[in-house]
Amino acid sequence: MTWIDIPANSPFGPGNLPLGIFRAGDEDPRVGAAIGDQIIDLAPVAHQRDDSQVFAQPSLNAFLALGRPAWQATREWLLDLVRNDDNRSDIEPYLIPQSAVTMLLPFEVADYVDFYASEHHASNVGRLFRPDAEPLLPNWKHLPVGYHGRAGTVVASGTEIVRPSGQRKAPADDAPTYGPTQRLDIEVELGYVVGSPSTLGSRVAVEDFKDHVYGVVLVNDWSARDIQAWEYVPLGPFLGKSFATSISPWVVSLDALEATKVPLPPQEPAVLPYLASDELTNFDITFEVRWNGQLVSTPPYKEMYWSAAQMLAHLSVNGASVRTGDLFASGTVSGAEKNQRGSFLELSWGGREPITVNGEERTFLQDGDEVTITASATTPDGTKIGLGEVTGRILPAN
Amino acid sequence: MTWIDIPANSPFGPGNLPLGIFRAGDEDPRVGAAIGDQIIDLAPVAHQRDDSQVFAQPSLNAFLALGRPAWQATREWLLDLVRNDDNRSDIEPYLIPQSAVTMLLPFEVADYVDFYASEHHASNVGRLFRPDAEPLLPNWKHLPVGYHGRAGTVVASGTEIVRPSGQRKAPADDAPTYGPTQRLDIEVELGYVVGSPSTLGSRVAVEDFKDHVYGVVLVNDWSARDIQAWEYVPLGPFLGKSFATSISPWVVSLDALEATKVPLPPQEPAVLPYLASDELTNFDITFEVRWNGQLVSTPPYKEMYWSAAQMLAHLSVNGASVRTGDLFASGTVSGAEKNQRGSFLELSWGGREPITVNGEERTFLQDGDEVTITASATTPDGTKIGLGEVTGRILPAN
Repeated sequence: MTWIDIPANSPFGPGNLPLGIFRAGDEDPRVGAAIGDQIIDLAPVAHQRDDSQVFAQPSLNAFLALGRPAWQATREWLLDLVRNDDNRSDIEPYLIPQSAVTMLLPFEVADYVDFYASEHHASNVGRLFRPDAEPLLPNWKHLPVGYHGRAGTVVASGTEIVRPSGQRKAPADDAPTYGPTQRLDIEVELGYVVGSPSTLGSRVAVEDFKDHVYGVVLVNDWSARDIQAWEYVPLGPFLGKSFATSISPWVVSLDALEATKVPLPPQEPAVLPYLASDELTNFDITFEVRWNGQLVSTPPYKEMYWSAAQMLAHLSVNGASVRTGDLFASGTVSGAEKNQRGSFLELSWGGREPITVNGEERTFLQDGDEVTITASATTPDGTKIGLGEVTGRILPAN
Repeated sequence: MTWIDIPANSPFGPGNLPLGIFRAGDEDPRVGAAIGDQIIDLAPVAHQRDDSQVFAQPSLNAFLALGRPAWQATREWLLDLVRNDDNRSDIEPYLIPQSAVTMLLPFEVADYVDFYASEHHASNVGRLFRPDAEPLLPNWKHLPVGYHGRAGTVVASGTEIVRPSGQRKAPADDAPTYGPTQRLDIEVELGYVVGSPSTLGSRVAVEDFKDHVYGVVLVNDWSARDIQAWEYVPLGPFLGKSFATSISPWVVSLDALEATKVPLPPQEPAVLPYLASDELTNFDITFEVRWNGQLVSTPPYKEMYWSAAQMLAHLSVNGASVRTGDLFASGTVSGAEKNQRGSFLELSWGGREPITVNGEERTFLQDGDEVTITASATTPDGTKIGLGEVTGRILPAN
C-alpha cells in the first residue's frame, strides 16, 4: 500500500498522513507529514504546486486558511506520493527520521475554547465538587457547556510544566493561603482545529462542521484542582487552568478519521433544532494515559455525549465568529468504568482513593512525574489511525 | 503649550497623544497620534527614526512589543513635536483631520481576560442573579475574580452589533427555548493593553505593572443576560458575552494618565502578599454613557476595588505568560449611586425598574438603539485627558 517502510503498529500508516511543524537543526521550521517513523519534508516536495508556500511556514495556519477543497486536494496528493511507487526516487531524498527533528507547536492558537462534553466526567466532577446537589446541572443536557481558556499558554508536547502557585482554601480553613498547588491534575481531551473562518454575526450549522474544522490534536489540559475549587464561582475556571495546556504535534485530518466514525449515544431530552442532525457522530478513538510509564486509564471517545459538530454549532449560534487557528477541545474524556477516567481527580476520587503507580501510591501529580497520552482509532477494515502523543513532565514550583 | 489648534474641551490635548490605527482612503492602514481633532501621520514623520517601521503597520502590536523604554522615548518625541514651534513646518503636512479617516481596531488582540473588579457591580449582580444568597461570594475580596473572553470577537468602535440568538430559560419555564436575546445589555469597562510579554512559568509582580502594560482603551462588553443566566453554571459566561466586545480606537498611555492616579479604596480583609503594595492606585476617570444620545450614567473608575496592577499580578501568579496584544478589562464599572451604574441590568434593576430614554421607557436594548461611552480624567492642574469614545448600534437578529 506504500513504498515507504512503516514499522508494525505505527500510528502513522499511509492513510493517516498528519501534518505538523518540525525543526531540523538550524533550519527554519516548516511543515512535514508523518509517515511511519519518518517525515516528508513538504516544502521542497511541493515546490511545483501553486500552494507550495504554505508548507514553508513555521505554523500550519496558512495551510489551514486554504479551506476544505485545498485540504482535500492536499490529501489526495499526499496519498498518491506514498502509494505510488513511481514517486519513490523523487520523494526519498526528502524523508527525514522523526528522531532527528524537534516538533514544535503545530499552529498559532487563535481562541481556545474548552467544552465539558463527557457525561461521565461532568457527573463525576459534580459529585466531587457539589456533593449535596444533582451531579449534572439543569443546562447540561440542553447545551454543550463550555468556556474560553488561555490561548497564549497552549504549548507543544514535551514542554515542561512548572507547578503553578496560587490561592487555595480548604472548606475548613478560615482564609485562603498562597502556595504551590497540592492537586495538580491532567485532563485527557480531543482538540478540534479550525481552518476556515466564519463571519461575525452568522452561525455555523451542524452540517457545515467539515467546512470549518480541518482536524484534531490530543490535548492535556493541566489543572490545579485546589486553585480551581476556590476561584471558580461565579465566572468559571481561570488560574486553575491557564498555566498550561499541552497539545500533540501532529494534526490528524477529519478525512483520515472518517472511517472511524460511530453514532453518537442517544441524546435525551431532544436537543433544540440548531443542535439537531440525523448524522451526529463521535470517533471511535481510545486514549491511553501513562503515568511515569504505567498505563493507568483508557478513556473511550465514542461515549462522549455531545458531538464536535454540535460544539461548533453552539459556539457560533450567537454570531460569534471562528478564525483560522481556533482550537476547541472536548473537555475531559471519561468512560463509564473507573479505569476509563480521564483525570486523576476522578481516578483517585478527589484524592480519597489513591492509585498505585509503579508500586507507589498516588493521588495527584508530584514533581518529576511525567504523563504521556496517546490515542488511536481503528477503522472497520482494521486500519489503525494514530494521533501520536502529548507528553509533559512536572517541574517544581518557582 | 502647542502650536496646533485644539478645540476647547478636546479629549486629546497636547499631553495625551494616544495612538491608534487609521485608514485614509485607499491607503494602507497605519499608526497615528491624536491631537485635537487631527491625527499626526506617524509613519512619514518618523522616517528618520530607528523604529519608524513600527508606525507603518496596520496594528500597534509592533510598537507595543518594543517595551517601556521605547514607549517613553516615543512619548518624549511626540511631546516635543507638538510643543516645539520649530517642528511646525515639518509636521503640518502630515496632519490629517480625524473626520477624513476611518479608525480601525488599534491592535490584534492576543488573549482577552475580563475581570469583575467593582464591588458595587459585583454586589448588584449578586443580588439580581442569586437573590437568596450573600451578594459577594466568599472569594471576591481575596482575589480579583476574572475569566477569559473571546479575543476574536473584539471589534472596533462603530462596528454594528447583530442581536445574538441562543438558549434562554426563565425559571418558570420547563425547558429552554431558542431565539434572539430579550435582555441585550452593555458593560462599561476600562481595558488594559499589554505590550511587553512575560515568561511562561514566572509571574509579574504588582510593582512591574508598567513594564508590561502600555495603556488603556474603553471597552463595551456587550452582554445577553438571558443567555448568560442559563448557561453560566458551572464554567462561567460564554455565549452571553462572546458575540462582541467593542473597544475605542485610541490607546491612551499609562504615562499620559499618570497625573490622574488616585489611591485605591481600602481593601479589607488584607490581601495576600503577592497582591499587596504600598502604592495601589486607580485612575480618576469618569465615564459617560449615552443611550440614543441621552446621558444615562456616569460610572466613576476611582471606586474600583481592585487595581489593574493587582489584576495582572493575579492573572500571572500561576505562571501564565502574557503576550503583546493581550487585553484585560476591569469588568463593569459601577459607582455607589444609581446613576453611576455601568450596565442596564443594574440601571433597570433586572428589568423591573425601567428608565426613561428620550421619553420612552427602556430596560434592555432594542434594535436600532445606539450606545456611546466616553470617558476622561482630569489632572490636579486641570488638564483633561480623554479616552475618546466607543460606540455601537444594535442590528436585528439574523
